[in-house]
Amino acid sequence: MEEHRPSTEAVNACLTDMYQITMCYAYWKAGRHETPAVFEMYFRKSPFKGQFTLLGGVREVLGLLQTYKFTEEQIRYLREQMPNADASFFDWMQNIDCSQVKVWSFHEGSVVFAREPLLRVEGPIAVCQLLETTLLCLVNYSSLVATNAARMRLAAGPDKVLVEMGLRRAQGPDGGLSASRYSHMGGFDSSSNVLAGLKFGVKISGTHAHAFVQSFSGIEDLQQQEVKAADGSTVNLVDKVMAYRKQLGISKANLGELAAFIAYCQAFPSAFLALVDTYDCLESGIPNFLCCALALIELGYFPIGIRLDSGDLAEMSKSARKLFREIEEKFSIPNFASRLNIVASNDISEDSLHELNDKGHEIDMFGIGTNLVTCQAQPALGCVYKLVAMGSLPRIKISHDLVKVSIPGSKRVFRLFDSTGSPRVDLMMTDDEVKHDGAPKVGEAITCCHPLDASKRISFTPAQVEDVLTCVWDGKILTLVENVDAIRDRAKRELQALPEEHKRRFDPQPYNVSISEKLFKMMHDLWTSEAPTHSSASSS
Amino acid sequence: MEEHRPSTEAVNACLTDMYQITMCYAYWKAGRHETPAVFEMYFRKSPFKGQFTLLGGVREVLGLLQTYKFTEEQIRYLREQMPNADASFFDWMQNIDCSQVKVWSFHEGSVVFAREPLLRVEGPIAVCQLLETTLLCLVNYSSLVATNAARMRLAAGPDKVLVEMGLRRAQGPDGGLSASRYSHMGGFDSSSNVLAGLKFGVKISGTHAHAFVQSFSGIEDLQQQEVKAADGSTVNLVDKVMAYRKQLGISKANLGELAAFIAYCQAFPSAFLALVDTYDCLESGIPNFLCCALALIELGYFPIGIRLDSGDLAEMSKSARKLFREIEEKFSIPNFASRLNIVASNDISEDSLHELNDKGHEIDMFGIGTNLVTCQAQPALGCVYKLVAMGSLPRIKISHDLVKVSIPGSKRVFRLFDSTGSPRVDLMMTDDEVKHDGAPKVGEAITCCHPLDASKRISFTPAQVEDVLTCVWDGKILTLVENVDAIRDRAKRELQALPEEHKRRFDPQPYNVSISEKLFKMMHDLWTSEAPTHSSASSS
Repeated sequence: MEEHRPSTEAVNACLTDMYQITMCYAYWKAGRHETPAVFEMYFRKSPFKGQFTLLGGVREVLGLLQTYKFTEEQIRYLREQMPNADASFFDWMQNIDCSQVKVWSFHEGSVVFAREPLLRVEGPIAVCQLLETTLLCLVNYSSLVATNAARMRLAAGPDKVLVEMGLRRAQGPDGGLSASRYSHMGGFDSSSNVLAGLKFGVKISGTHAHAFVQSFSGIEDLQQQEVKAADGSTVNLVDKVMAYRKQLGISKANLGELAAFIAYCQAFPSAFLALVDTYDCLESGIPNFLCCALALIELGYFPIGIRLDSGDLAEMSKSARKLFREIEEKFSIPNFASRLNIVASNDISEDSLHELNDKGHEIDMFGIGTNLVTCQAQPALGCVYKLVAMGSLPRIKISHDLVKVSIPGSKRVFRLFDSTGSPRVDLMMTDDEVKHDGAPKVGEAITCCHPLDASKRISFTPAQVEDVLTCVWDGKILTLVENVDAIRDRAKRELQALPEEHKRRFDPQPYNVSISEKLFKMMHDLWTSEAPTHSSASSS
Repeated sequence: MEEHRPSTEAVNACLTDMYQITMCYAYWKAGRHETPAVFEMYFRKSPFKGQFTLLGGVREVLGLLQTYKFTEEQIRYLREQMPNADASFFDWMQNIDCSQVKVWSFHEGSVVFAREPLLRVEGPIAVCQLLETTLLCLVNYSSLVATNAARMRLAAGPDKVLVEMGLRRAQGPDGGLSASRYSHMGGFDSSSNVLAGLKFGVKISGTHAHAFVQSFSGIEDLQQQEVKAADGSTVNLVDKVMAYRKQLGISKANLGELAAFIAYCQAFPSAFLALVDTYDCLESGIPNFLCCALALIELGYFPIGIRLDSGDLAEMSKSARKLFREIEEKFSIPNFASRLNIVASNDISEDSLHELNDKGHEIDMFGIGTNLVTCQAQPALGCVYKLVAMGSLPRIKISHDLVKVSIPGSKRVFRLFDSTGSPRVDLMMTDDEVKHDGAPKVGEAITCCHPLDASKRISFTPAQVEDVLTCVWDGKILTLVENVDAIRDRAKRELQALPEEHKRRFDPQPYNVSISEKLFKMMHDLWTSEAPTHSSASSS
């Protein structure tokens, strides 16, 4: 298998928290660094007040595992940071790799839920521990922004075109790249980010900004007046446009803006999209656009449309469509109004998409930046990475805060489907239980327990069972390294299969994530035995 | 001068929005690509409901300018994206660099305010346009997170130790690196991020996590019982610790946790810091810590302290300090309670720092992750990059939204100080005005006008005048490329000099950012002439 590398050089063994290194030294010093351990990564709550999450970052995780190695320079640096540590520790560190590590994972792009393991990492405790921060860094934001994108797609509807354009507001260069890549995975159609196109094959798109319009003061700024018509002939575009300006009785519209639009038509006669709010949409931008649009049509082209970047987008889009209809009628151009696209791009969010829907907007494409890439509504997914077994012993993390109590043991996850093909329960069982009793069987009832509330348990008879954690790494990559489109397709497919009640905007219902009866018993026995006193563990 | 490169390979000419490339082609096609233009970068509002911002990213900007070049692979990719564009456009693109560009900038780490140019970029319009997205990407997040860090420093007070630990929740690898670097600039003492230490010289720190504690089940997990005492002798640490356990009458505390603490002491006898909330702080973690702490002191060391990662941090820190005082008295160890550090690290934010202050906490160090790096309270700074002049003509961007109207003309900024050395007004004047009339003079009154409100103007007599925009690039770097500590020192110095009224938490007063009388007149004349009608420009 060819080497699969992370997409940025910043993903390397030193992209971790210092406490992983100090802990690693303490494990080593205690002679426990090779003890087999199991860690699981999970989150406690889906983001954006929702009930689902899309898993991102698996491909990057594989790149990390395959290239995992401290360089000599890095070892030197760590030595300086820990001047009192035994020298032979660093000799050992120099040889660390992931050859002894196994990783199970959901497929990237899968729909995942709170409390279930997204990744399970097994191997020598010191190495698994070192991986924690890097794995979280690769999964947390990618899953968050993919989920954000998917929610915006649900809000906009399947037929709208969604363009990610957040590079300038992202957390630096790589934050921007991750945003573009995982927004695409979550259902966006294209990105403004050229480097994301080049690196990840995301479709890119773009037209022009206000500065382009401002840079022209009047028609005299145009050094040439011609454009090549669709039939190859050379035509004076300025004359054509000015004739329409006269015919439409336009006098107030800004002539610098008109010159800019003409220049853009000369560069992209078959892809004319005009940003119409530099001076005033209705008084200037749209009238200027229409003069150019009519001229282009006369020359055998068809314009793409307009972009609105300020004001009341719903009202303005309706006004624009109405004007387009008037022109359609006046000039008898079939489908003029319906073929033109109205793009909107000012501070769009999931909420504003719903508001625009309520107002009956006429927008065909949305350009979304800040709210998408910064995930303003919830800017972090709280994935954690917890020790669940040490050797063959399950381990638990107890907390006064019940939601922070971890589910112990090395686990498998089975997705149970009903007879309509909808997923209904994700059931966790320990590895050992599956080895002894087997996986849940199609057509056989199985008890699914809430991990914390003994009174919440149901019996479910699956019509289909999917073993959702795959061993993707066992000293080498064991899975197909998928491209972004394959991952995007999975996300789309799984989201479609997810029942509406878990996806809807208001009061979405939690998907059933359960543990088996045996796991429930083991968890609660361990909880009791590890708590310092019975009262302090159960009193809150 | 040695070559100065960006800190990540992702910072290159293709890290831009596609519309910069399409606009660039349209400029080129119109024969206007070489026309000299001036762009300015500014924001409209300081973040976090505050009235100041720290400028970040200048060093990275210099790296971009110095290495700016489209590679052959990138040109090939762009050709594919624009199949109808003239081939000779790409020949021209291949030769683009920043040799014809000049950049003026505030020094990195400066305190800056809304509406004033942070950077001024002059040169051929096509190249300046291409730079827009990349410059914004480099300045926006870095300034935002530095400001966030500075606000947390103001909230925590000058004597607390602040540790950034947000890597796992940042926008991917580079988001995490930027967060660490610019948090340090804003006043944090150290970071958990090892790679940030290695790359940027940020001090790093770390101890251990819950997993380390959980990985031990009991004292029998310790393969060795000894530790080297400060005097070089070998001592049985387990015996010492168990003796204190007995002496203190501790029976309920978790023995796995105690074993973990002993193992950590064996690895770091002179740097023992224990995470005490894995099972229960008061019933287990702190008693276990105390047994180890007393043993270490007997061996000639002094422990660092404890870390609290859940629960009511103010109450728990007070309880812990009280216990420390009791031990100080019982064992007659001078300054035991005051020398021990209490570290807190659960979801700390600027607001929670203020709340903790109100509650009279006993915390010495804060570990801050999610709220710092994601800037949860406002996850984007809205820096924009606007065309302000084309050739020698000033340009304006008009909007119905008054705050979006740009201040036209290539500008200089003078910071005017009062006789106490406090900055009082940042005054913008056009380049031309300064050439004709000179800069503001010490001891001479000058009129400072609000850009939008003609009734708001004051006369100010500066005791000191600083010309704050420096030419940092003119085809080559013209300034010292500063390291992170120099930048951090400037930020600290300038923040100290800023009057309290602009820094306070509640109702901070806007700093006076004004324009000269001549600039006011020019701006409003241009506004009137560019608006499509008088009524539409002034009616809203």
